[in-house]
Amino acid sequence: MSFNFFVPIERELEVVERNLICNIDSSVPILNEASQHLVSAGGKRLRPAFALLSAKIFKDDINDIIPMAVALELIHMATLVHDDVIDDSEVRRGTQTVKSGWGNRVSIYAGNYIFARALSIIASYGRNDILDILADASMKICEGEIVQMMSSFDITKGLKNYLRRIERKTALLISVSCQLGAVLCNANQRDINALKLYGYYLGMAFQITDDILDYIADEEVLGKPTGSDIRQGVITLPALFALKYSSKREELARLLASPQLCNAYTDYIIEAVIDSGGIDYAYEVSSRFAFKAQKELALLPDVEVKKNLSDIADFILQRNY
Amino acid sequence: MSFNFFVPIERELEVVERNLICNIDSSVPILNEASQHLVSAGGKRLRPAFALLSAKIFKDDINDIIPMAVALELIHMATLVHDDVIDDSEVRRGTQTVKSGWGNRVSIYAGNYIFARALSIIASYGRNDILDILADASMKICEGEIVQMMSSFDITKGLKNYLRRIERKTALLISVSCQLGAVLCNANQRDINALKLYGYYLGMAFQITDDILDYIADEEVLGKPTGSDIRQGVITLPALFALKYSSKREELARLLASPQLCNAYTDYIIEAVIDSGGIDYAYEVSSRFAFKAQKELALLPDVEVKKNLSDIADFILQRNY
Repeated sequence: MSFNFFVPIERELEVVERNLICNIDSSVPILNEASQHLVSAGGKRLRPAFALLSAKIFKDDINDIIPMAVALELIHMATLVHDDVIDDSEVRRGTQTVKSGWGNRVSIYAGNYIFARALSIIASYGRNDILDILADASMKICEGEIVQMMSSFDITKGLKNYLRRIERKTALLISVSCQLGAVLCNANQRDINALKLYGYYLGMAFQITDDILDYIADEEVLGKPTGSDIRQGVITLPALFALKYSSKREELARLLASPQLCNAYTDYIIEAVIDSGGIDYAYEVSSRFAFKAQKELALLPDVEVKKNLSDIADFILQRNY
Repeated sequence: MSFNFFVPIERELEVVERNLICNIDSSVPILNEASQHLVSAGGKRLRPAFALLSAKIFKDDINDIIPMAVALELIHMATLVHDDVIDDSEVRRGTQTVKSGWGNRVSIYAGNYIFARALSIIASYGRNDILDILADASMKICEGEIVQMMSSFDITKGLKNYLRRIERKTALLISVSCQLGAVLCNANQRDINALKLYGYYLGMAFQITDDILDYIADEEVLGKPTGSDIRQGVITLPALFALKYSSKREELARLLASPQLCNAYTDYIIEAVIDSGGIDYAYEVSSRFAFKAQKELALLPDVEVKKNLSDIADFILQRNY
């Protein structure tokens, strides 16, 4: 993904990056090392970017949004560390995970520590509406993780279950990021809502795109092997389509329901899903969400930075990734 | 431990108990089951009790403290679920742990969910000083967990390391509970500080007592087998004393440094530690903390409920448990 969208907030994103490192400053060396490792592993910093871009709609000087942008990335990072424990992942974003470097125990506490650090930043705003929004999102994200876990290798779960999973996995925190950018600028309720929905729809589109890439991406670009979802029993939109419409649907059902077969026949499953048209279908659904996101922007004040938010949706609509 | 200390807040504690159950109300069944299981496993509800007793010093109607009391117990429960994952504990408080019933994954998410639930209660107070105190304590608690983990089977760590561990494991959250009871009553800074220190010293005394009981208690009363600390490599005060002053100190050092030997010779280690006078020494240290706790109370307004807080310290001083 190109980063031209972020030009208006480039300086602020650099400050976020520096703060991410400074903010993890524990007196316990191993906690510092694990957290620093996590920060330096990089990532697109999408949540900070969305909070900053959203705020930029309402005012030019958005320095007061930077701590919140940092907190949002810390919360995201905390969920990643815990996911690594759970998925037994050894690689994320192309580098070693905290878990594989330091073990399960450190990962759980590092996740909790990073989350608490985010809370302490949030406390500095002295606004309980923000905490309320984040506490609510955190609960829903946990619920989503459990739903995802319970749905592993379960081929009977349908579209509704999938949408619920990706909503909680990705869309919610991106939605909250956009929302909080506006809330901190004391935007009016209509504008806050438009950005919240923009983030929600865009987050849905993003996750579907991500799920597509797990089938078709270059492993080097992806930073992890393709087919990881399949091996972990995470049945995403392309597979859901194939399970319904592929000529091999019965065979696919048998394979996708079994951890052993998913591991042994990953490449075969990928090919069958692509052949079924599942990728095109997923692109279609993703585009529909991106379009909905774009529509929400129409309600917002007509300022330059709105173009950037719109371009991000366009990027998905044009399948540029 | 007798519950007479809690008579002045009995009604409020009952409401806390009811609210603990109502507050875990997720749309995801397994999350509800795991959490409900955790609540119904009981516990002494010390943190709620301390928040309520502390508040009662400043005013009679303490209904507005009840949500905070619930939040404090939820935070405590969240750390217990995560500890269960980490310690591979199958039994806590005499009943099955969430982990052994539902697996590691559910435990991590259940812990995160319960913590987020606590945050949402805290948000309802609209006071960022409270969030600040709790975020700070949460970070320190995580650090303590890591320190404890890194110190397993490490016989070179001394008293300072032990005190730091129990501070973060127990004293901090009890201290915060007392502190927040006063903060929510808008008590003056001197009184807030006195209660914060009272909670801190008492928490230290409690944990030392707990560590003693792991050597000498009746397994049925304890709700878990004696010697669990030894088997998990957690070297507590009685053992620290024995490592320094026992005639068998060299043998003990060899045993306590090895997970295998700790498991094979638990009873022998217990006996050697008791023979060394380690238990009496730990009682002595615990009493000193309880005495310090009691001294803090002198600064507080002279109301009836102060007697209850003092009696709790007395209970430890008289070794009544």
